[in-house]
Amino acid sequence: MREKLVSPREDFSEWYIQVIQRAELADYAPVRGCMVIRPYGYALWENIQQSLDRRFKETGHQNAYFPLFIPYSFIQKESEHVKGFAPQLAIVTHGGGKELEEPLVVRPTSETIIGYMYSQWIRSYRDLPLLINQWCNVVRWELRTRPFLRTMEFLWQEGHTAHATYEEAEEETLRILYIYRDFAENEAAIPVILGKKSESEKFAGALHTYTMEAMMGNKWALQSATSHNLGQNFAKAFEIRYLDRNNQLQYCWTTSWGLSTRFIGAIVMVHGDEKGLKLPPRLAPIQVIIVPIWRSDEEKEKVLAKIGELKPKLQAFRVKVDDREEYTPGWKFNEWELRGVPLRIEIGPRDVETDQVVLARRDTGEKWTVSTDDLGSKVEEALEKIQANLFQMAKKFLDENTYRLNDYQEFRRIIESDGGFVIAPWCESPECEEAIKEETKATIRCIPFEQDGQPDRCVYCEKETTLKALFARAF
Amino acid sequence: MREKLVSPREDFSEWYIQVIQRAELADYAPVRGCMVIRPYGYALWENIQQSLDRRFKETGHQNAYFPLFIPYSFIQKESEHVKGFAPQLAIVTHGGGKELEEPLVVRPTSETIIGYMYSQWIRSYRDLPLLINQWCNVVRWELRTRPFLRTMEFLWQEGHTAHATYEEAEEETLRILYIYRDFAENEAAIPVILGKKSESEKFAGALHTYTMEAMMGNKWALQSATSHNLGQNFAKAFEIRYLDRNNQLQYCWTTSWGLSTRFIGAIVMVHGDEKGLKLPPRLAPIQVIIVPIWRSDEEKEKVLAKIGELKPKLQAFRVKVDDREEYTPGWKFNEWELRGVPLRIEIGPRDVETDQVVLARRDTGEKWTVSTDDLGSKVEEALEKIQANLFQMAKKFLDENTYRLNDYQEFRRIIESDGGFVIAPWCESPECEEAIKEETKATIRCIPFEQDGQPDRCVYCEKETTLKALFARAF
Repeated sequence: MREKLVSPREDFSEWYIQVIQRAELADYAPVRGCMVIRPYGYALWENIQQSLDRRFKETGHQNAYFPLFIPYSFIQKESEHVKGFAPQLAIVTHGGGKELEEPLVVRPTSETIIGYMYSQWIRSYRDLPLLINQWCNVVRWELRTRPFLRTMEFLWQEGHTAHATYEEAEEETLRILYIYRDFAENEAAIPVILGKKSESEKFAGALHTYTMEAMMGNKWALQSATSHNLGQNFAKAFEIRYLDRNNQLQYCWTTSWGLSTRFIGAIVMVHGDEKGLKLPPRLAPIQVIIVPIWRSDEEKEKVLAKIGELKPKLQAFRVKVDDREEYTPGWKFNEWELRGVPLRIEIGPRDVETDQVVLARRDTGEKWTVSTDDLGSKVEEALEKIQANLFQMAKKFLDENTYRLNDYQEFRRIIESDGGFVIAPWCESPECEEAIKEETKATIRCIPFEQDGQPDRCVYCEKETTLKALFARAF
Repeated sequence: MREKLVSPREDFSEWYIQVIQRAELADYAPVRGCMVIRPYGYALWENIQQSLDRRFKETGHQNAYFPLFIPYSFIQKESEHVKGFAPQLAIVTHGGGKELEEPLVVRPTSETIIGYMYSQWIRSYRDLPLLINQWCNVVRWELRTRPFLRTMEFLWQEGHTAHATYEEAEEETLRILYIYRDFAENEAAIPVILGKKSESEKFAGALHTYTMEAMMGNKWALQSATSHNLGQNFAKAFEIRYLDRNNQLQYCWTTSWGLSTRFIGAIVMVHGDEKGLKLPPRLAPIQVIIVPIWRSDEEKEKVLAKIGELKPKLQAFRVKVDDREEYTPGWKFNEWELRGVPLRIEIGPRDVETDQVVLARRDTGEKWTVSTDDLGSKVEEALEKIQANLFQMAKKFLDENTYRLNDYQEFRRIIESDGGFVIAPWCESPECEEAIKEETKATIRCIPFEQDGQPDRCVYCEKETTLKALFARAF
C-alpha cells in the first residue's frame, strides 16, 4: 500500500511537491536549487517543445544556438538589464586550471550575446526581419526554489528578433503572445489572461512586456510566458544597425520572448486533483494506459493476446500496456491516475469473450463498456472530450474566482481569505501598486488587454482612472 | 562577385573554415573557443537529432535532463575520471553575488551526477535495465579550437544506462555503436570503421571504449562517436546497487555513449569539395532549391506562378524557392552549391511553356531536362541516387586510401606524404604506440572489429602478434 497523497485543499504546496515526485516528473538534484527532469516529465516537455516549435517555424522563425557563457562586460552594456540580472548571476572564474582574465557569466537570458551577433550579421534592410529562436538551459541564482516553478537552472525557448520599425517589432511581440495563448488553450487546456506588465514588473531592459497569466488550483496566478518589445535599448547598447532603403544607417527594433519548463508547473497546478496529475491528452506522454486483468496464467495469456490484436487499432495514440506481474490491477489504476494518464482501458477474460473493453476517464472518473469494433475512433472521441472538458473546467474555475470590484476592503477580504483574481481600477502609480503589494501580497499580474474603458476610481487612492489591472497572489 | 573558395587540396584547414563560415553553418562567438551555430547549421543538427532520437527510442531509451552544474567533489569520486577531466574544467565559484562554499563544475560529461541519481532510483533488479539519454550542452576547456571539431562548449547526446550484468552492459555498448554506424552510413552517407580504443585512448573511467572512425577529405581520421562499457567503476564510486532475485545487494554495470555537433564537421569534411558543402539528402535542411529564371516582370510572374503550381508535387521534400531580385540565377547556383543543397530545379519562361524543368545534381554536376509530369517521383529518385552516390564516393575514397602493411618505412612514407589509414600489426604495447605517435604523429584510432587473425610482426618492434590496429593522423 502506498501512502495517500495530501489533499490540494489541505496543503496545496505540499500536494504540488508530492505530485511532482510521485508521478516521477522530477527529482531533487544534489546541487542546491537544481532539479532533475525525469523521463516522464521530460517527455511532457518534448511534447510542449514540438507544439511550440511547429508554431514558431510556421511563422518564419528558425532555431539556432548561442554560447552558454557571456563575457561579464556584455551584461553591463544595457543599464537596466544589468540592474535586473546582476544579483542572479552564476560566474565562472576559472577555466582549464587558470583564473580567467574576464569572468564569464552563465547565461541568465541571451539578449546581450545575441545582440552582439546580430550587430555582426545585420547590414541592410534586406537582412530584416531576423527571426531566431533558441532552445536551451539558463541559470538564475535563486534563494527559494520549487521544482519547475523556480529553479536555479531551467530549460526554455528564447526567441530574439530584429526589425526595421517599432510597428513591426510590436506586431511580432504580440504575434508571439497569441501563439503562446493558442498553445496554452488548445494544447495544454489552460485558459489564460493576456495583458501588459506594469513598469515595475517588466523585463529588465524592455520597452514593455506582455504576459500570459493563468490561475492555478489554489487561485494564485502563474506568469506562464512573456513577450518583450525591447525598443531600441539593446540595439543601441550593441550597435545593431541597418542601412535603410535610402542608404541611411538606422538602429533596429528588437524583441525577445520565452516559455520555460515552468509551464509544466502550470499544467500540474491547473488540472491536478486529490488523485494526482491530470494531463491534457494533446500533451500527455501516455494518452492511453491499458491495464490487463487476469487471475491465472491461462487468462493472462488470453488477455495479452487480445491486447496484441487491439494495438494496431490504437496506432494513432501514445499507448502503454502495464502488464507487470508484481502489481494488482487496482494498484495500477491508482498509479496511472496519479500520473495523470487521460484514458484507461481495462480488459479482462470475460471482455475477451464478448469483444468488449472498459474505458475509464481520468477527468470525470466515468467508466463505460464499449465493443472493440472501431475502438480507435471511440478512443479518439473520448480523448477529445477529455481535452475539451479540462479546458472548460479550468475556464469555469477561472471565471468563478475572478472578481471585478473597486472597493479596497472587499479586495483585501478576497485576497486574504479564499483568494482569486481581482480586476480593479488602478491609477497607474507605482506607489499604489507597491502599497497594495505590501498590505496584501497581491501584485499586478497585468493590465489585461480586455478593458471596459469605463471611468472609475483607483481601488487604493481613489483617483479617477479608466484603467483596470489584474491583481493576485502569484508564484 | 564573391571571392573564390580556397581549394581543399591546397589548404584543407582553411577550406574547412571558409566553408563553415560562408555556408553559414556557424560563426565565431565573442567568447574564446566558443561558436554560434547559425540557423542553417542548427537545422542540420536538428535532422541529426531526429534521426538518432528515433533510433534510441525504438530501442527502449527515454530522454531526461540532469543539471548543468556538478559539485566538484563528485568529479573526484572516480579516480581515473578526475585525472582525465580535471585539466578541462570550467568552474563556477560565485553565485548570487556570493562566493560558493563548494565550487561547481560546468558538466564536461555527466557520468558522475547521473551515477548519483541512479544510486537513488535503482533499488532492485526490476528497475534494470535503466536506459536514459540526454540532449544537452557540455563544456571542456580547450586550448586550440576549431568550429564543430573542437570547441569549448558543444552540443551532444549522452546516453547513460545501468544493467544487472557485465554481458548486458556490453551488449548495450555494442548495440549503440551499431546504431551510430547505421545512422552514419544510412543518413549521413559516411562509411565508418568500428573498433575498440587502445588503453591510452579510452574514456577516463571506462573499462573499454568502442569508437566509430571516419576518413575526412584530407585522409585524416575523425572520431565520430564513442560508446563506453564503464564496468562497475562508476557503480562503485557512486554506490549504484540493486537487490538481485536472491535478495543479494549487487553493484550495477553501467555504460555511456555520445555523439556531438562534431559530427557536423565530419559531414563537411567527408563530402565537401572545391565548390563547398555537399549535404546528404536525408539530413540536408534544404533538399531541393528552386531557382526561377526571368528577364522581365512579365516572365517573372509567369515563372513564379508555375512554381506555385508545382510546389504541391514536392510536398514530401524540404524545398526552398530563391526568388530574390537582387541576385542573378548564376549567383544563386553558386550560392546553393556552396551551401550543399543536393538538388536544384531551374525553371525559365520557356520551361513554363513546354511543361519542363531542369534538374541539376550537386554531387555530379549532371543537368537534365524533365517534364513536370510526376515531378515528385523524379525528384525522389534523384535524391536517392545522390544519397547512394555520396556514400559510394566516400567508401571508394576510404578503401583507396587504406593500406594494409607491416613495414615501418612504408608506414612512415604513407603517413608523412599523401596520408591515409594504415592497418598494421601491433604488439599491444603502449611503448610502440607512443613511439609511433612521436615519430609520425599517427595515433591508434582503434583496433578494428574486422581482424584477419593471421600471425604477423608488430610494425614497430617486430614482436609476434596476430592483432592489427588502425593508425592515422587525426583531428
